[in-house]
Amino acid sequence: MTRDVTVRDVGPRDGLQLVKAVVPTQVKLDWIAADRGAGLPEVEVCSFVPAKVIPQFADAIEVATEAAGIGGLIASALTPNLKGAEIGFKTGIQKINYVMSVSETHNQSNVRRTREESLEGFKAIIALRDAEYPGVSIGIGLATALGCTFEGRVPEAESLKWLGKVLEAGADEVALPDTVGYAHPAQVRSIFAKAADICGDVPLWSHFHDTRGLGIANALAALEAGCTRFDASLAGLGGCPFAPGATGNIALEDLVFLLEAEGLKTGIDIAALAKPRAIVEAALADEPKHGHVLQAGLPKGFVPSSAIAAE
Amino acid sequence: MTRDVTVRDVGPRDGLQLVKAVVPTQVKLDWIAADRGAGLPEVEVCSFVPAKVIPQFADAIEVATEAAGIGGLIASALTPNLKGAEIGFKTGIQKINYVMSVSETHNQSNVRRTREESLEGFKAIIALRDAEYPGVSIGIGLATALGCTFEGRVPEAESLKWLGKVLEAGADEVALPDTVGYAHPAQVRSIFAKAADICGDVPLWSHFHDTRGLGIANALAALEAGCTRFDASLAGLGGCPFAPGATGNIALEDLVFLLEAEGLKTGIDIAALAKPRAIVEAALADEPKHGHVLQAGLPKGFVPSSAIAAE
Repeated sequence: MTRDVTVRDVGPRDGLQLVKAVVPTQVKLDWIAADRGAGLPEVEVCSFVPAKVIPQFADAIEVATEAAGIGGLIASALTPNLKGAEIGFKTGIQKINYVMSVSETHNQSNVRRTREESLEGFKAIIALRDAEYPGVSIGIGLATALGCTFEGRVPEAESLKWLGKVLEAGADEVALPDTVGYAHPAQVRSIFAKAADICGDVPLWSHFHDTRGLGIANALAALEAGCTRFDASLAGLGGCPFAPGATGNIALEDLVFLLEAEGLKTGIDIAALAKPRAIVEAALADEPKHGHVLQAGLPKGFVPSSAIAAE
Repeated sequence: MTRDVTVRDVGPRDGLQLVKAVVPTQVKLDWIAADRGAGLPEVEVCSFVPAKVIPQFADAIEVATEAAGIGGLIASALTPNLKGAEIGFKTGIQKINYVMSVSETHNQSNVRRTREESLEGFKAIIALRDAEYPGVSIGIGLATALGCTFEGRVPEAESLKWLGKVLEAGADEVALPDTVGYAHPAQVRSIFAKAADICGDVPLWSHFHDTRGLGIANALAALEAGCTRFDASLAGLGGCPFAPGATGNIALEDLVFLLEAEGLKTGIDIAALAKPRAIVEAALADEPKHGHVLQAGLPKGFVPSSAIAAE
């Protein structure tokens, strides 16, 4: 089956990075394998950051190494610096996603560097990949591309300027994340349409947080603007330390329902997502869980687009 | 200020009809007044049904009578039959909303009549209004217009056929509710674009449930198709007896944020919605509450469109 759109579960990375309960390594691996079992083509499995910064990722090497061996899966991992990338390359992981912020203030707060320094760091990772790990794909997420809790509105032209810079630096893929859930559909449509033009053949990812309730609507707007790659997390894991009760990433199961209902093939079996969701629910009993379609069930007579394709 | 779009809180009716805890009359009235205080132009305040069917509405006459006297507010109420409408007319309420289903099975289940019988009942209410209550507006909601838990998919042509019939019968306003949360954006865009053409100058309302996570995205699709009137309920009250954990109507606060962020004037002060929400939270401590924007707060530097208009 040919997919029309690609959905990636970023739950094991973005969904866990603020969770207090440390999830056992084997549970993470069961979750990732169950994601693949439901048809997910890609999972962001961990972040290569020091364990003293985020204890949840103390097992990043083991998780990445094992996940990289799951048949048919693209395992990706986040890193904010060259050191993390060096560790990541050695695990055999298929993709490394770098992160820097369009907002200078946020970049300083998040990685303690100027944006120019972050860009140089990105170039160093690409140089290392070119020299020693030619099979690894290098993506980059331009955090706060749609708004920043420090700076407020981030000008579209500023985000697109940095998009141009990272493409020039050699990014294999780019993401324009709504890091703090500030975006609205008209804004999304505008920037994604322009970004898709600028990216050309370079894959462009969306990444929405449902912090203010517009996450799925923003994904729809990105889709309408030509975006075909979507981050999400099972059960809407994520949360935000600055917004109690707010959700994290958009719920993967509801996003897949949206896309399949709109007639697009994701290659993902919505009902089969119940298995990884059950793993997540058991492992994170005290975390708020979101997402509706698995609890409500699919509409009577609903035939997913991917199922039609498989007939 | 001229509104671009109209948002109605249906929480005191749709949000309460399945809630077990009976909300005291004064609390309902405080909620409705606080809605008006935040700028809501219309609230569906109750349903005129026998107390033995829905005990929650045993105080419907008192609620409707008091709500009808709130300055600047259009108080509306639901009724499934002529008897309810007769009671409603006497309260002085500004609008009566009748309900029938496009799905024959659902109509039989909900009001124990054929659709033709329901249509005759609607005509009888309009005749009574014409004869004795000329100032009252008569709306109608075509339940299951976007899908039915009994019949599954409801053909668009069938929904539009009944839309034509109720307009011919003299409806002042119509709604195409997604009663059970089956709709998806492409479906919504298609039917609302056609319905808007058929309705001409007759106001057309959308009414989405977030049962499968697509409620706000569907509201966006309806907006894009030309719909300018939206039902919602504070905190996403509603629920569905057939879908544990599923939400009810789309959360009013998030809908208003969507519309204001898209540059449309609702006339509603998002921050001021905290007051009616607090009333709802205190009155319904055991019910699941939804909606994100009030907990997360508005984005830094966000200026609502209605605020710009007021300057």
